[in-house]
This record gives sequence, C-alpha cells and structure tokens, in this order.
Amino acid sequence: MPELRKDPVVGRWVIMATERSKRPSDFAKEREPRKGTPCVFCAGMEHLTPPEVRSYRDDTSAANQPGWRVRTVPNKFPALRIEGPPGRRGEGLYDLMNGIGAHEVIIETPDHDLGMADYEPRQIEEVLWMYRERVLDLSKDERFRYAIVFKNHGAEAGASLEHPHSQLIALPIVPLNVQQELRGANGYYGLKERCIFCDVVSQESRDGRRVVFESERFIAASPFAARFPFEIWILPREHGSHFERASAPEYRDLAMVLKATLGALKTALDDPPFNYIIHSAPLREEGSNHYHWHVEITPALTKVAGFEVGTGFYINPVPPETAAAHLRAVLNGAAEPAGLTQAPTG
Amino acid sequence: MPELRKDPVVGRWVIMATERSKRPSDFAKEREPRKGTPCVFCAGMEHLTPPEVRSYRDDTSAANQPGWRVRTVPNKFPALRIEGPPGRRGEGLYDLMNGIGAHEVIIETPDHDLGMADYEPRQIEEVLWMYRERVLDLSKDERFRYAIVFKNHGAEAGASLEHPHSQLIALPIVPLNVQQELRGANGYYGLKERCIFCDVVSQESRDGRRVVFESERFIAASPFAARFPFEIWILPREHGSHFERASAPEYRDLAMVLKATLGALKTALDDPPFNYIIHSAPLREEGSNHYHWHVEITPALTKVAGFEVGTGFYINPVPPETAAAHLRAVLNGAAEPAGLTQAPTG
Repeated sequence: MPELRKDPVVGRWVIMATERSKRPSDFAKEREPRKGTPCVFCAGMEHLTPPEVRSYRDDTSAANQPGWRVRTVPNKFPALRIEGPPGRRGEGLYDLMNGIGAHEVIIETPDHDLGMADYEPRQIEEVLWMYRERVLDLSKDERFRYAIVFKNHGAEAGASLEHPHSQLIALPIVPLNVQQELRGANGYYGLKERCIFCDVVSQESRDGRRVVFESERFIAASPFAARFPFEIWILPREHGSHFERASAPEYRDLAMVLKATLGALKTALDDPPFNYIIHSAPLREEGSNHYHWHVEITPALTKVAGFEVGTGFYINPVPPETAAAHLRAVLNGAAEPAGLTQAPTG
Repeated sequence: MPELRKDPVVGRWVIMATERSKRPSDFAKEREPRKGTPCVFCAGMEHLTPPEVRSYRDDTSAANQPGWRVRTVPNKFPALRIEGPPGRRGEGLYDLMNGIGAHEVIIETPDHDLGMADYEPRQIEEVLWMYRERVLDLSKDERFRYAIVFKNHGAEAGASLEHPHSQLIALPIVPLNVQQELRGANGYYGLKERCIFCDVVSQESRDGRRVVFESERFIAASPFAARFPFEIWILPREHGSHFERASAPEYRDLAMVLKATLGALKTALDDPPFNYIIHSAPLREEGSNHYHWHVEITPALTKVAGFEVGTGFYINPVPPETAAAHLRAVLNGAAEPAGLTQAPTG
C-alpha cells in the first residue's frame, strides 16, 4: 500500500509510492513517451486498458468496444489504491496515512492525432461533462476530500502518452496549494465581504490589458502575477465554488472558451506543451462564498528548476500584458473559428 | 525597471522581467547551455564578466585577474536592479513594487570541469564563507528582506552555464515557501515550545532509517515526506535561525558533509543534475527560536510538471528510506574520501 506522508513544517502531502519503487539505475535516463499508433488509448485497443468506468458512446456500441467518444478508465499504474481505510496515524512527530484514492484517465477522443484545440466544441463539452460526472461519483466516497482534474499536453509537460487524455486524482487530503488558496480567499472575504476572484474578474474585464478572450459566462486572462509566460486563467463570471456544480450553459460556454484559448496558444507558440488544472473547492463542502472555481493553464515554455520549486518564487520573462496582447492579435487575426463569438474587451 | 508583483490570493511574489522580455518566437526551442572551455567563468576570462564584487585570491594577484579561488560577480543579466526605491504601490486590488534586488554569481572554482563533490573540502568551505560574507554585506541594505543562496548543477536543473557556480538573489520580499515554513515552524513552537527542526534532527538521528551521513555538527537525511527521489536535507544539530550566523567550525563541518553527500549522489546516480537551496530566516530578523536554517538538496531526476507546481502535491516513486540506505551503502562501500569521518548511525 502506498503511503501519504505529510511534511511536518509546511503541511505538504506527498504520495510515497512504496510498491512500484524505482531503482537508482532507473533514473539514468528519463524515458521518452511512447509514440505511434494505434496506442492503448486508440479505438479498437480497448482491451489493453483496464475496463472502462464510464464512457459516452453510440447507443449501438458495447462497453470496452469501439464506438465511444469519451472514455474513462482506471489508471493502469495508479499512484493510489482505491480500497482500504484512511489509517491516519503518527510516527513520532510525523503524520501519515494509507495511500488511498482514485486515479482515473479520461481519454478525450478516439483520435490519436488531435489536440484539444482541434476538437469540435461539442467534444470538449463532453470531456467537461465527463469530468463533472466522475468528480460527483467519486465525491460519494466519504474518504475523499479533494479531486484534482488536470491535463498534461506534450512530453515536456509530463504527458507519458501522446494520445490526448486528462487525469483525475481523488485524494483523502486537500493539497497544499489549494489550502493556501482557500486561506487567502477566506482572509480577503473576512476583510471585504466579497470574493477575491469576483473582484479579479471585474477588474480584469474593466482593465482589459490582460484579457485574452471574453464570453458571456467566462473570462480568459493572463493573471497579474503570472508565474509563467503565457499563463492563462479562465474564470466564470458568476460566482461558484465547485466546478462540478456549474450549469449546462457554463460547460457549453467553457468548451468554447477553452477551444479559443488553447487554439490561440497553439497558433502563437507552435503547439506548446502545457498543463491545465481545474481549481475547485474541496468535495462536499458547502458552497463557499469566498472560493471561486477556475481553470489554470500553464504552458511549459521555460524549465521549472529546483529554485522555483524550493522558494515558490518565480521569474517570468514575459509580462502578462504582452502575452495577452499577442494572443488577442492571434484570435482577432485568425479566421473566426466556427462557434466562436468574442465579446469586445475593456 | 522590472516589477515585483504579488498574487492577490496566495501572496506569491513574481519577478516580471518587463525589460528583457522575450518574444513568443524565442520559446520555439529552449537553448542548450553553452559548453566548452575556456568559458566566461574560467581563469583568464575575468574581463568577460562584470567587475568582481569580492574574491578569495592569492595575495600577489590583482582584482579581475587570474589567481582567485572563489570569485563573486554581479549577474550579467540580472533579474533585478540594485538601485531604486522599493516603490510599493497598488493597482486596483493588486500589489506591486519596483524590481529591486541583487543578483550575484559565485564562481566556485577556476576549474571548469570539476563538480562540487570533487573539490577539496577547503574549497567548499571557502564557497560557504563567500555565501556568508555576501549575505552579510547585502543585509546592510535595509531595502532587502531575504537572501536566497542556491546552486543549479546540470542543464536539467536549470544551470545555463556548465562552469560550477552558485547564485545569490537578495529580495525586498520574503518568498512564499519561506513564509509557509516560518508560519508552520511558529505554529509548532506555539504548541510545543520547541523548534520543530530540532525535533526532526533528534527523531531522525534516533531512528536512523533516513540518515545519509552524520557528523559532529550536522545530520544529512532524506526527509520523511521527501518530494523527490533522493532529496536530502542537511540540518545543523545546534539550533540557529540564520545560515550567515553559523560558526567557523560549522562551516568547516558542513563543507565535509556536503562533499560526502554530493559525492554519494554523484556515485549512486551517475552525476545527476541537482539543486540546493539554503533555507534561512529573513535578513536582520532577531535570532528566532522556532526557525532552523538548513540546506535542501533536490536531485532533478523526475520531470516537475505543471501538476506538481499547480497543486503543491508530489508523487515520489522512491521512499526516503530506500534512497538513504542506498547512499549509506555507497558511502560505506567506497574508499573513505580524505578528511571524511562518518559517525555511527542509529
């Protein structure tokens, strides 16, 4: 059983994968991602993954057969085990618990060669619905406190398979950065009785310099203190604490905004590696008036070295105003993609 | 003038290098580090760096000429500017200030081809004295609140030049991770009236499973909740809040422990890329009874992806007990390096 161990000073949890532990010689060279088709995530290769947990597919097709549009399977090499008690315990001054949790893979499309920016908006919308459905299902398990939904695109961003996919990790703890966000947002609310993210949405929309794209329900902007060149956050205009409680029109709108934003990044930066993470409040918590769910997209253009990781202090060579202006130009210059309507900025 | 901008939610500061801002096309390919000798940091090439701030050299040699053993120069492409007022100001709900600070490079040896594990212990000791001297000198500047001393070894760890060097960044703010450490350590002190790091030293020394090397004054151990395979922390046994206030015997001892630890990593992992960061209390603060300076060494064996950066949640495939046992075996099996004495463990 893997363990979850907590750093006693800062409260950061780490999964210690004690079972499939690597030998030192395994680190001599980092493996390149496997390439080529058909891969284990391609249509027709369903027998090579663990049996699917959920899929959106043609009514005429059967589970674990072709005919699916979006397909969720357990991770074949999960970092956490789904079964077992939390087993919270101490070891001297340290805290640890059993490495329980869920680790699922959302295969976003049967088409190996597409990037998310190339999907039809409806395809992205189905991926978002799949996220929602899996988070809601896993949140029934009282042991789990948080669900991280994220996507790695490109080897430099940590993707170990080319075929487009997202991941979901359900955890019995709340990750450190989420704790910090919650604490910060709560502090601001105590001072102002307003959600800080709502204030950010309002200031960014009014200011306009960092806006990449605006829709009826969302704003995509490069954050004021962006850590990375071309970092983009997508925030819903209407306050809501949980991604999985958003409305159908919001998912439809977000799919369009994701397509526009990822498309602009792809054009501007020649299909850069990137990650996105959905930031949402802890599972089953009452709707909070101070936390505001959103998506953070971070292109992996610069190497993140131990300096940044060790200090939490970043040097960004591209101001967000420059990045946003560039992406707006790409969006305005390009032939308008089908289904995209861009509201005026500023 | 670069800017320091603060994330309004979590309080993370970012240097926004507005002047030497890159164009999007610059990111198409990340540059490989320049290779080959003689390089700008080699003996005889002193005219290619900005004039030295300080050097340890033969009495017969002149500044900015060969004859030095350790040499500190301003970074030729500094992320921060040394001159100017802090200029703290607001922009709506955001906080920012002028990007003032110092950015220096400590050239650790004239020999291009050595790694720190290969230096004579006396050479490492001189590097540590240089760190101390530069931090104390910069701490006279009332604008600066924190000094980060760190080393990147190898391109994968962010080193842009092969020639062995460290860096020092003096900042008008305290980095986020340091704030967290201070808060965590303070909370523990409030509860226990003991330093948490002192308790860690004591428990690790007694337990022994995670110990890599012990000396009279230091313990090198892989932390209980190590984020990375073969992560090692070196902690002084005697409580002290500031690296720059350590004693001469401590620097001498730390040099030996660094040589042993980095030597074991080099042997075990075939000269891996790594970073180390000296964690110390903010400049000019009174000696704190709850913060305990130490060195964190993080080998860059696994890719740090947006997932880890975005969540502060890590998956470590090598438990610290396994890493430490391996490094102890290397240290015990190898012919004892000159000047090394290893105290019995456990």
